[in-house]
Amino acid sequence: MAGLGARVWVVPGGRIPFPSSGDEPEFTSFDQLCVLNTGDEPAALEITVYYEDREPVGPYPVRIGARRVRHVRLNDLVDPEAIVLGRRFGCVVRSPVPVVVQFLRQDTRLPGAVGMTGTMAFPTDLP
Amino acid sequence: MAGLGARVWVVPGGRIPFPSSGDEPEFTSFDQLCVLNTGDEPAALEITVYYEDREPVGPYPVRIGARRVRHVRLNDLVDPEAIVLGRRFGCVVRSPVPVVVQFLRQDTRLPGAVGMTGTMAFPTDLP
Amino acid sequence: MAGLGARVWVVPGGRIPFPSSGDEPEFTSFDQLCVLNTGDEPAALEITVYYEDREPVGPYPVRIGARRVRHVRLNDLVDPEAIVLGRRFGCVVRSPVPVVVQFLRQDTRLPGAVGMTGTMAFPTDLP
Amino acid sequence: MAGLGARVWVVPGGRIPFPSSGDEPEFTSFDQLCVLNTGDEPAALEITVYYEDREPVGPYPVRIGARRVRHVRLNDLVDPEAIVLGRRFGCVVRSPVPVVVQFLRQDTRLPGAVGMTGTMAFPTDLP
Repeated sequence: MAGLGARVWVVPGGRIPFPSSGDEPEFTSFDQLCVLNTGDEPAALEITVYYEDREPVGPYPVRIGARRVRHVRLNDLVDPEAIVLGRRFGCVVRSPVPVVVQFLRQDTRLPGAVGMTGTMAFPTDLP
Repeated sequence: MAGLGARVWVVPGGRIPFPSSGDEPEFTSFDQLCVLNTGDEPAALEITVYYEDREPVGPYPVRIGARRVRHVRLNDLVDPEAIVLGRRFGCVVRSPVPVVVQFLRQDTRLPGAVGMTGTMAFPTDLP
Repeated sequence: MAGLGARVWVVPGGRIPFPSSGDEPEFTSFDQLCVLNTGDEPAALEITVYYEDREPVGPYPVRIGARRVRHVRLNDLVDPEAIVLGRRFGCVVRSPVPVVVQFLRQDTRLPGAVGMTGTMAFPTDLP
Repeated sequence: MAGLGARVWVVPGGRIPFPSSGDEPEFTSFDQLCVLNTGDEPAALEITVYYEDREPVGPYPVRIGARRVRHVRLNDLVDPEAIVLGRRFGCVVRSPVPVVVQFLRQDTRLPGAVGMTGTMAFPTDLP
């Protein structure tokens, strides 16, 4: 059965906070993409990262199983290259099957405080 | 009269923060689904929970009256099983009638600070 | 010229945090509806408030001028009755002309910390 | 190739927090529009700012390259006039090509704490 959602999702507001405070990895600052694949086929996603002052980088491959969720810390993407902490970026997630994508940031730059923000990513190919 | 909204809503970014600090239940860490049923029929919702490494669990039944709001702390769902604190998940809410669903997180892992984030859930069957 | 947006907006996740700490009114805890009317006609909005355990209350009348923004602290609505602080609710905004509505919460229950969350409200009559 | 998104985006909930605490510019309070142009043409955006008690101001011109992201701190807009800190506003972004716009606020009014909130802006001309 086909899953719920869309095949292309956009997040313009990326910037992994730097530095972090508190215990790792729980309190490490991060930008995260949370992907839910409710369908019955696994999916090979491709993430493209856009910058202010250079050409886009990617695709970053991310696999997600059928009927699975995956929370991708963008800090952890290293191939083809790591995203520099504190650098402004945006990203596009492309999936061969419908998925839903949510953006989440955790900011622990200040000791003793956790800032959080997030939003549903923007879908561009709604059926 | 039919209510406002959609019948299927998706939230990929679930993870109930753990532990909590401060007085319970007001400052307990939670992930929450806020559901508004503006229609004239009560609704029996079904929540399905998706994980990273196992098959989905559910349905979790949740009832909501006609012309009522209900804020469901996902910490409180226990049948068919509790959601483990700190575990990553996503969820899908299905309703026989149109409703609107908003996601909200309260994070009190650090004493003296309250992190909050949220977003409208993603509707997949807009009329 | 007609304005941008939709005529009906829904917010399920209302709950004005209680109590507040810090200087009033700047650090008072609030739930807020931010409304933008980009059109050339003023609008008489009507807000209906939904609860967990009683019938909806309203309409609360709110006027907004042509080409104006208005940020409505729900704490300030008193007619037909005030919203009890700390009580869970949802709300629907109806407008005779298209507007855009954003939800914002400020939470100062803990001294020395400001929690904030928000989301675009959910539009139900997109053209 | 045409980019992803829409040509008109709306944010009703603007208010640059005032004052700031902590090191500048990293911890300066701000309201920000994050714009992603995935297309192959640069774009000259126009931002219009709406107020509670006066006519709209603008357009504020903002350029964004092809295949680029740009994070615009609204504090930095000065022509035709600066946005007064702490004043309530809304804004509309118009683009000749499709883009995606996300709103982000950082609030450092209280020393030692960072409040953050944000949401995808509201698109009004979806294809």
